[in-house]
Amino acid sequence: MSRVKALCFDVFGTVVDWRSSIIAQARALGARKGIAADWERLADLWRARYQPSMDRVRRGEVPWTNLDALHRATLDGLLAELAIAGLDESDKAELNLAWHRLAPWPDSVPGLTRLKRKYALATLSNGNVRLLVDMAKAAGLPWDCIFSAELVERYKPDPATYLSAVRWLMCEPGEVMMVAAHNGDLAAAAAQGMQTAFVARPAEYGPHQSRDTRPEHDFTLVARDFEDLAAQLGA
Amino acid sequence: MSRVKALCFDVFGTVVDWRSSIIAQARALGARKGIAADWERLADLWRARYQPSMDRVRRGEVPWTNLDALHRATLDGLLAELAIAGLDESDKAELNLAWHRLAPWPDSVPGLTRLKRKYALATLSNGNVRLLVDMAKAAGLPWDCIFSAELVERYKPDPATYLSAVRWLMCEPGEVMMVAAHNGDLAAAAAQGMQTAFVARPAEYGPHQSRDTRPEHDFTLVARDFEDLAAQLGA
Repeated sequence: MSRVKALCFDVFGTVVDWRSSIIAQARALGARKGIAADWERLADLWRARYQPSMDRVRRGEVPWTNLDALHRATLDGLLAELAIAGLDESDKAELNLAWHRLAPWPDSVPGLTRLKRKYALATLSNGNVRLLVDMAKAAGLPWDCIFSAELVERYKPDPATYLSAVRWLMCEPGEVMMVAAHNGDLAAAAAQGMQTAFVARPAEYGPHQSRDTRPEHDFTLVARDFEDLAAQLGA
Repeated sequence: MSRVKALCFDVFGTVVDWRSSIIAQARALGARKGIAADWERLADLWRARYQPSMDRVRRGEVPWTNLDALHRATLDGLLAELAIAGLDESDKAELNLAWHRLAPWPDSVPGLTRLKRKYALATLSNGNVRLLVDMAKAAGLPWDCIFSAELVERYKPDPATYLSAVRWLMCEPGEVMMVAAHNGDLAAAAAQGMQTAFVARPAEYGPHQSRDTRPEHDFTLVARDFEDLAAQLGA
């Protein structure tokens, strides 16, 4: 663990609370437009279709499509299915940008600020670059650099995505630690030789979360939150 | 100009004073090792071979090679030519990393700090990602993201490098402004439809600089330094 020089962070769920943020922004838009809807259900279904939408890209059924565009296609489908009417084009474009304005978990900014003094901090997210830049500016996330699936046009857990970060950091895989709240992401990083930190986010999917409540593999470390991660890493 | 949403910065010479920094670090190493040499000449020749070393990559004579590796090959050749002896492998590796520790011009950090409140700020440099990350951490450069020729494996002024930044920022070319102290870099950015800001750095090449002392094209704006740039851009 003392070899670690850089940390790469999964973002959605690990650093930011997408569910509460999407619900709040959709609800505010609904209130402004006088539209009643089950905004929690919209948020949950929007996220539930995240992996399937990337799967179509992963399987090559559609050409490379960044996450903003996948989010928008999913949103258009869901609004029709849920019979949410009354949003015009600019409302939908604005709602899609809710993913650029997700609130960090309370420990994220203080933990990252501590970690940044000792390590290089990068995103390593399936979110597109612009989304991650906007989010960092809005939420005050102190990244040293933005790595994204978009840079190599391969969505995690494709090995190419993890290896691109390792290569650009000019590190060996064992000198880079992947930090995530998701077992699958960390297992894929470990398969490329990266070190791994599991940080449980038991409220990510709402009050009835069943997945990723605990580490399911032998990760390098397990931390309660980013402050605990900083403490364990001596930052 | 009011359309501008993001600024992309050339780095060597525009943001940081490579010549004074390289001379100072080489001289300190020489003093530590008891080696007398013309360190100013080493710095000037090292930089003089920057473009020719990239030209070999641009012409496809050698496969993609990042700037750290080009710098190191040039250094090894120069140490032999200048008959500078007594540096072991770790000294040479350390001296090569001097490019990761270049000091900013006095106005760079205050100007960027102002600009960051209003715009997304990115590097757009031929320096490799790790070099730019290390430099930003050492010098306190508040980038929102790191764009580098390394990400697309094309050195500026290849159009692909400029267009990659525009694409990842999800902007039109006219919404992104390239900032540089070099006429050629800005002319290449303008050819892709980007806006351009020329900031003269008349001491970049030392006391006898003849190139790039003034703007030679019709750029969007010309600024005295980054504070003036911030003022002109309303930041």
